[in-house]
Amino acid sequence: MDENSFGIRDGEVAIPLPDHYDASLYFIGRIHTPWKQRRDCPKNPRESNEVCTIEVDPRWAPALARVESLSHIIVLYWMDRSRRDLIVQVPRHYGEKFGTFALRSPARPNPIALSVARLVGIEGNKLKVVGLDCLDGTPLLDIKPYFASTDAKPDAEVGWHAGRKNAEGKR
Amino acid sequence: MDENSFGIRDGEVAIPLPDHYDASLYFIGRIHTPWKQRRDCPKNPRESNEVCTIEVDPRWAPALARVESLSHIIVLYWMDRSRRDLIVQVPRHYGEKFGTFALRSPARPNPIALSVARLVGIEGNKLKVVGLDCLDGTPLLDIKPYFASTDAKPDAEVGWHAGRKNAEGKR
Repeated sequence: MDENSFGIRDGEVAIPLPDHYDASLYFIGRIHTPWKQRRDCPKNPRESNEVCTIEVDPRWAPALARVESLSHIIVLYWMDRSRRDLIVQVPRHYGEKFGTFALRSPARPNPIALSVARLVGIEGNKLKVVGLDCLDGTPLLDIKPYFASTDAKPDAEVGWHAGRKNAEGKR
Repeated sequence: MDENSFGIRDGEVAIPLPDHYDASLYFIGRIHTPWKQRRDCPKNPRESNEVCTIEVDPRWAPALARVESLSHIIVLYWMDRSRRDLIVQVPRHYGEKFGTFALRSPARPNPIALSVARLVGIEGNKLKVVGLDCLDGTPLLDIKPYFASTDAKPDAEVGWHAGRKNAEGKR
């Protein structure tokens, strides 16, 4: 299967989507990365030290006040090329079936992706960060402060992943 | 100001919202908690050990396969009662101005909230979790596995918060 295709693999299950949406989103900026195609993207954020740029639309730029005091941010973005109807997936590099909610795959009912990024600097409406792995031009949804007190769970375990080499359930 | 009102405080800045949306969401379930009003909610997830229930719509329930092997999950949900036009906010318990993206306040252009929850058990389409602080009935958007390797940053710092008592920038 072509790496950029979004077909279904053997064992995957797609369902009919609901007939209406329940809420709507604004794209509030774009993420600029060195990766123009899916096959170029790092498999997970630990695999790259590239500095990426988050460009916030000028409309929302004043909302960045005091973000410069954060060492890490949570970045939410929209995986706009992903199919939303898969409930069971077979990631290529695992070759086994998983429920969508056990994976970080971009294919999910609401393709909101989340990365924890280290903030390197801010200039105006542009943030320099390390720790993203998405395609160039990805739409931005939100930026949040990362609080170690509530967000860091260093002892968390992903049972299905124990003993495997790759750190993420991406396809 | 009434605690359940969503007016503007002195120093807060609201802007006109964009004239169109860019993407849409499905509510894929509901979160059941003991808290029926905003004033009842814990100030942050560390303040409560209550077991809450995430009820996934039957349509998406097969997507929970292998979630039972996770110790912690990332829960994304929709703060459906929040205003979306505030770029500068003055959290009540801080009394200072912050850009929206420096806070975890529910008021933000895309009111997607994020909590890291400990998974206690699963029965069918219902997950028992500890670590949520939202209102009863909150719409569910996504469930993701928490990977300590990429999501845990125990040394992360929130500069503006250093030395303060409360762990979050919520209002």
